[in-house]
Amino acid sequence: MNGGGNSDWPGMACPASVFDHKRILLGHGSGGKLTADLVRKLFLPAFKNEYLARLDDQAVFQLNGTRIAFTTDAFVVTPLFFPGGDIGKLAINGTVNDLAMSGARPLYIAAAFILEEGLELDELSRIVDSMRQAAFAAGVQLVTGDTKVVDRGKGDKIFITTTGLGILEGSATISADRARPGDKIILSGTIGDHGTAILSRRENLEFEGAIESDSAALHTLVAAMFEVTDQIHCLRDPTRGGLATTLNELAAASGVGLEVDERTIPVKESVKRMVLLKTEIGGKRMLDVLLGEQLPRIC
Amino acid sequence: MNGGGNSDWPGMACPASVFDHKRILLGHGSGGKLTADLVRKLFLPAFKNEYLARLDDQAVFQLNGTRIAFTTDAFVVTPLFFPGGDIGKLAINGTVNDLAMSGARPLYIAAAFILEEGLELDELSRIVDSMRQAAFAAGVQLVTGDTKVVDRGKGDKIFITTTGLGILEGSATISADRARPGDKIILSGTIGDHGTAILSRRENLEFEGAIESDSAALHTLVAAMFEVTDQIHCLRDPTRGGLATTLNELAAASGVGLEVDERTIPVKESVKRMVLLKTEIGGKRMLDVLLGEQLPRIC
Repeated sequence: MNGGGNSDWPGMACPASVFDHKRILLGHGSGGKLTADLVRKLFLPAFKNEYLARLDDQAVFQLNGTRIAFTTDAFVVTPLFFPGGDIGKLAINGTVNDLAMSGARPLYIAAAFILEEGLELDELSRIVDSMRQAAFAAGVQLVTGDTKVVDRGKGDKIFITTTGLGILEGSATISADRARPGDKIILSGTIGDHGTAILSRRENLEFEGAIESDSAALHTLVAAMFEVTDQIHCLRDPTRGGLATTLNELAAASGVGLEVDERTIPVKESVKRMVLLKTEIGGKRMLDVLLGEQLPRIC
Repeated sequence: MNGGGNSDWPGMACPASVFDHKRILLGHGSGGKLTADLVRKLFLPAFKNEYLARLDDQAVFQLNGTRIAFTTDAFVVTPLFFPGGDIGKLAINGTVNDLAMSGARPLYIAAAFILEEGLELDELSRIVDSMRQAAFAAGVQLVTGDTKVVDRGKGDKIFITTTGLGILEGSATISADRARPGDKIILSGTIGDHGTAILSRRENLEFEGAIESDSAALHTLVAAMFEVTDQIHCLRDPTRGGLATTLNELAAASGVGLEVDERTIPVKESVKRMVLLKTEIGGKRMLDVLLGEQLPRIC
């Protein structure tokens, strides 16, 4: 505003005028195009460095010769409890997986809780116990934390930010920009389960019991893959943006084209039924749901 | 609820019945007694480990012979902008200081943003630019992040969780439980400036311009102290709980008594005036304000 100063500092000021919108929209948190816009126009120029620039879900750096992975995620899922999991389980597994997707062994977790005045202590206890179980199952320790409380109506029961630290023991370099012509794309499971489980509970759909979130820690799966080969170029745990956004990100970062035969993508029958139902109700095409642009707050 | 299972897991389930309240109160986030209650009855039993048990503001652990400090804090301050700073500056300096208080050199920061639908991009830009400046001034790099958006009315413009990672290069062990008889207590500055700056803006008090937040990175101060002596036992950056809560925590953790001559505590005249004003308006004694029990959301 004062027209000068600090010009020798790295990065740059970030005028709001570079954006197409004047205010934050739900879509800025969807993991899709608007989120990417925010990252590229606001965060990357401000905090210019080689780690952020990779656009991976974690930073990997060396400390005294040890390679460390570092990742953070805020969890704002609603409802808090859903078929197959809850916000606590997601908060641990999501961060464990963002570490695992760099090839790191997840070790330590930091957790920051933003609680809304009026949250039932019974609900908080259940969530914390769920985090305890997920952390034990994944072999990580929650070693530091913080708790804040906001006035009623200024939050939504509970938000949890988990930050993870892991160690890279092999020499593998996994990154979004390493996809190469000839690489094969492997999906480790069916897609759409988690988002559909959340939606079914949110909209009180009748057959909700049939679809469960597939939230799980995947670091042992990654370790098993590395036992077979070290020729693994990119790894991702697709969340908000879904498969389509993830593939687009890898393609853009690596400068390659990806060819996907939609018929080979595994989708559970119950999830397909749900997607069809959504299509009839809301007029969405299946591809939109997979793109995840219309799925706010599923993690 | 099912009366069994998982009895071989570490930690324990956390029944809500152990609490005096059924719901979260604003006081659970004050940094005072209710916060301690939550930590001791809920988080410590669930995530039982040597790092959490120290009750420090950061975890310190070894990785391949390198000592690392790890800390997280959620920032929910309101208003977002106040005399002497804003939520972005606080979010960087608060985490830098929690690292510095272990004797660590702060290196890397992870930041998770929870934005409320409708937040002005101009405000977000100013906050991000403030973080950029604070990170540069403190010599830390923001290397990874996350952005989520919650529906209008389910947040309060912006919450920022920062997590920091630093390295301990000396052999010092700083911890809340290391205060010993004969130790001297040193304050690095006047107390109450930050909380009073926030309150003055929140309540639109006339002389608000006279009181500024003293938010600043303190790692160079700590480094200068270690150049003089390695006989430093405890370090704290008192925030929500203020001086009184901090001293009580150190006394309890170390099993020592602390004697403080209130007349020797440095307080700016303008802050004293403000405290007196609050006393006349709200009937609070000065000690209550210093205890911080009635200062929600100052960080």
